Amino acid sequence: MGVYTQAFRLLFGRPLATSEERAEHIGPLAGIPVFGLDALSSAAYGPEAALTLLIPLGLLGVRYIVPVSTAIVILLGIVYVSYCQTIEAYPHGGGSYTVASQNLGEGAGLLAAAALMIDYILTASVGISAGVGALISAAPSLQPHTLELCLLVLAILTIVNMRGVHDTGVVFMIPTYLFTATLLIVIAVGGWQTVHAGGHPHPVTPMPTALPVSAALSAWLLLKVFSSGCTAMTGVEAVSNGVMAFRNPTQKNARTTLTIIIALLAILLLGIALLCRAYGIAATDPGGPGYESVLSMLTRAVMGHGWFYYVTIASVLLVLALSANTAFADFPRLTRAIATDGYMPRIFLIRGRRLLYSWGIYVLVVLTALLLIIFGGVTDRLIPLYAIGAYTAFTLSQAGMVMHWKRQGKAPGRMIVNAVGAVATGITAVVVLMAKFLDGAWITVLLVGVMILFMRAVHRHYVRVNREIDLNRPFHPAQIGEPIVIVPVDRWSRISEKALSFALSMSCDIRCVHVRTSDDPDPFPEVWEKDIVAPLKAAGGCIPKLVMLKSPYRYILYPILDYVLDVERERETCKVCVIVPELVVQRWWQGVLHNRRSDLLKVMLLMRGNRRIIVINIPWYLGEG
Amino acid sequence: MGVYTQAFRLLFGRPLATSEERAEHIGPLAGIPVFGLDALSSAAYGPEAALTLLIPLGLLGVRYIVPVSTAIVILLGIVYVSYCQTIEAYPHGGGSYTVASQNLGEGAGLLAAAALMIDYILTASVGISAGVGALISAAPSLQPHTLELCLLVLAILTIVNMRGVHDTGVVFMIPTYLFTATLLIVIAVGGWQTVHAGGHPHPVTPMPTALPVSAALSAWLLLKVFSSGCTAMTGVEAVSNGVMAFRNPTQKNARTTLTIIIALLAILLLGIALLCRAYGIAATDPGGPGYESVLSMLTRAVMGHGWFYYVTIASVLLVLALSANTAFADFPRLTRAIATDGYMPRIFLIRGRRLLYSWGIYVLVVLTALLLIIFGGVTDRLIPLYAIGAYTAFTLSQAGMVMHWKRQGKAPGRMIVNAVGAVATGITAVVVLMAKFLDGAWITVLLVGVMILFMRAVHRHYVRVNREIDLNRPFHPAQIGEPIVIVPVDRWSRISEKALSFALSMSCDIRCVHVRTSDDPDPFPEVWEKDIVAPLKAAGGCIPKLVMLKSPYRYILYPILDYVLDVERERETCKVCVIVPELVVQRWWQGVLHNRRSDLLKVMLLMRGNRRIIVINIPWYLGEG
Repeated sequence: MGVYTQAFRLLFGRPLATSEERAEHIGPLAGIPVFGLDALSSAAYGPEAALTLLIPLGLLGVRYIVPVSTAIVILLGIVYVSYCQTIEAYPHGGGSYTVASQNLGEGAGLLAAAALMIDYILTASVGISAGVGALISAAPSLQPHTLELCLLVLAILTIVNMRGVHDTGVVFMIPTYLFTATLLIVIAVGGWQTVHAGGHPHPVTPMPTALPVSAALSAWLLLKVFSSGCTAMTGVEAVSNGVMAFRNPTQKNARTTLTIIIALLAILLLGIALLCRAYGIAATDPGGPGYESVLSMLTRAVMGHGWFYYVTIASVLLVLALSANTAFADFPRLTRAIATDGYMPRIFLIRGRRLLYSWGIYVLVVLTALLLIIFGGVTDRLIPLYAIGAYTAFTLSQAGMVMHWKRQGKAPGRMIVNAVGAVATGITAVVVLMAKFLDGAWITVLLVGVMILFMRAVHRHYVRVNREIDLNRPFHPAQIGEPIVIVPVDRWSRISEKALSFALSMSCDIRCVHVRTSDDPDPFPEVWEKDIVAPLKAAGGCIPKLVMLKSPYRYILYPILDYVLDVERERETCKVCVIVPELVVQRWWQGVLHNRRSDLLKVMLLMRGNRRIIVINIPWYLGEG
Repeated sequence: MGVYTQAFRLLFGRPLATSEERAEHIGPLAGIPVFGLDALSSAAYGPEAALTLLIPLGLLGVRYIVPVSTAIVILLGIVYVSYCQTIEAYPHGGGSYTVASQNLGEGAGLLAAAALMIDYILTASVGISAGVGALISAAPSLQPHTLELCLLVLAILTIVNMRGVHDTGVVFMIPTYLFTATLLIVIAVGGWQTVHAGGHPHPVTPMPTALPVSAALSAWLLLKVFSSGCTAMTGVEAVSNGVMAFRNPTQKNARTTLTIIIALLAILLLGIALLCRAYGIAATDPGGPGYESVLSMLTRAVMGHGWFYYVTIASVLLVLALSANTAFADFPRLTRAIATDGYMPRIFLIRGRRLLYSWGIYVLVVLTALLLIIFGGVTDRLIPLYAIGAYTAFTLSQAGMVMHWKRQGKAPGRMIVNAVGAVATGITAVVVLMAKFLDGAWITVLLVGVMILFMRAVHRHYVRVNREIDLNRPFHPAQIGEPIVIVPVDRWSRISEKALSFALSMSCDIRCVHVRTSDDPDPFPEVWEKDIVAPLKAAGGCIPKLVMLKSPYRYILYPILDYVLDVERERETCKVCVIVPELVVQRWWQGVLHNRRSDLLKVMLLMRGNRRIIVINIPWYLGEG
């Protein structure tokens, strides 16, 4: 094993045999980092996004965060129940795509597929850019390197994920649990102090004063606050997509994982909202000079500015950056499911050396990097495109479940739960779309449309190809017949001898083609009679025919090509084989010293030829003589 | 004929048949623009380059231009006589390369070849940049677009030259003769006025005052002045390289052309020198604010600042820019001569649609563009690299002619002429090299070395290949034998049916290879027995063998490749044919929907395979079913 192979294995792990599949399966402990990072990390930006929109209402606005968060947690509860039912009904992984396409038809399925694919790419970009954004607000000198840092995080995520699901879970466990534990401690301590202080505790370190009131409350503002806070719910569908990644009992493990994720997220969202209100913490202007994130202020207010503060902020930062991992876990599974139905290129079906659907990861990485580069790695520019996809998928998934239960004809209770969920998430989707449309959501809508057209075209193509090449009858041996063999010969050399002897092993009808580019006397016909025809006559074998082609304009390939097509037209049933001798050089620069005519002839025969023309490469290796 | 083809023909002309060669031949009238532009245009920069170095001597320095120019014209005379003799001795085109390699051996020939190739590329770059430089000194607002203008001129020259020698001569005739005529008129009128005024005529418009004396005369300064003035002689070898371009009587026409070019150049050089002295015209600082070219001052002094002045300056400008054309005429002929001897890639031997050695033109254009881009299109930066190549070639050519006459054993007079020429140009080459070495001539020396190494490597490669593939014996029919045919089969489809029926037409020893990537039950062997083996048994034909390959790590190509190599090792004399079915899609984007395994398998077989492995492409066209 070479040194490069060893380094490669150290980085990406050894190849896994298909039979090792089971060892790659995970339980809830690793499942939470793999599938829950996106959902959990949104506790760090969901409340902040809602509070930022409340800035114009001053300190009064902070009061509204509690009812808004409560509404979001109720919606979360509905979605949770719905996905538990989905996991039970679709034990092989029932993402929104599967549920929608199986219950609502092709159109709904493709809409869910396109919405989810775009949302996963946005999850990866937003997660990475938010994590790097948090790092930069801690160390402003890194500001000019925002994009480079984003791409670095992307590269690290890629390498970890290329090792497979199991290793990823192990690697991401520590930051995930550190994040959850520190935030739970902040909420517990803050709650105790609030109760102790009769509802109005004093912050340990002074808070910035809230900005003056500059706007009045309106229903539209509250809707926008709600829709911004709803970004906290993206990533909830992740577990239902990845049921197959869990070890036995698969469904139970998946459900346990989902329950823990949702419970933690609900506690975090409600706790943060209540404490913000109790401590009177208003968001600061994200573009302004005195900006500080809500979680930073909250931790300072409850725990002071000591070591615990730094551990908490570091874990927030890490988890934000790693939340992109949910996309890595689910995007390849989703594209694989779509490809299985023939709506995406088949390459997404190939399992790589670590049993992953590698091409899903490659495509995700390239598109995420593109998005980060186009938007400069700035979260605020990406956020408006985000979350619409997720809510569209939620709605279609729950509507699909309604149809599923209806078809089963029993369990009306379950049907009602899903119906409520579908209505609630549907309304949210419309609100989110309206609130963000002009800010960038229109790009998502456009991309969803383009993706649907692409998937339809792919499917049409595969259906057509399969119709053409499928064969449901036995072999017809009658089709076998001797082909006509055409051998282009420039001069009598070892290469042409090899080509000719191969041609003679195939057929008795051989035409050697020689192109004349000038009017000068050509010595080839004489060589032909003496060195080729004479010994063959002596041996009593088949005699190939010599065809001299005139080329007044000095073209070499066109006359040969025309001749091949002529022969093919004349003889309507025969196969026509063209033998293309090819010199294989030992070093790359030697390539320029030989004409690429054989390559060109192959391409031209492929492009202008048709089904009865077959190209045979006879390679000649320098050094073989 | 499509609209694109028509536009293409309008721009580049219709293709020319090889039999139309004679119509492309030219006489002296067109020969002067084609081969003489470089030499004649140097009258515009040679004297100027010499006078610029004389600036520190003040008005006194102008006196030295006459003896320096006289020395240059004498050298020109010697070189002229020598090249007349070369044209006579080498009627098929005797450039320095041919003469040196045939008379002085391989080393001298390659030195001349490398020096000339580099010099031609520099001729093109210097000519274009000097012409654009003259245009910019007339219209300074164009300064920021120097490089773009240079590349535009290069593009125009390329298009004109792609039409062939004949059309180029016709197009460039007008500027060439306008340039010669106006300058001759200036010299005649100036000479008449000088005689009339007793040797001290008054300029019609006032001349700038010469700069004050700032240095003393030294032998080294005079040598540098001489070597700078010698740039006026580059391009003199052009006719001898292109003898074959002239119509019958070839040699006489070539000699006449050379004589006219040299005579005109001598008159221009001497006339300019004498008038500069008579009118007291010193060069102005090329970098300074009051810069004006010597020819501009001279024309103003003699003819005044009227319309004639503008016509003259315009023709100078045009001819400078077009002087690059000499490189276009000779570079492809030179590379073709070198390629004929096997020291350059064979591609330079191909005659394009207009009977040109097109690849020589392509390479010249690319390298000239590169040089212009690297040096920003500024003449002054290019000049130090220039002329060394030309003088090296002159010296080798004349030394070669000495050997030529010596070998013939007669004509001692001719031998003496060439010997004098060799010594004179040899000394000049050394002077030029010394004077310019640190300013940039070292780059030329380095490039010449690299080129020689490259040409030797090319030659070694071709010699080796020819030794390997040359065949001077008749065909051995005994080598013909039935091959083993390997057909990779994924599933039973029309494509595999086509591949299998072709395999059966070739051989009885067929192995169908099927790769299993999972432990799940595989339905293929059953299909194989029922749909393939059964009908073949019924028809009484050969029965192919089914080979099942296990692939625990899900690779498809490696197991097939390993099997092919195993078979090839086992059976030491048989040829092994691998049939690679290939799907040909109708639109480019459909390519991503199908795996490129067939392409990859071909490449891997070519790289890891060896001489007994043959690859057969069976294309399947979508729509052929």
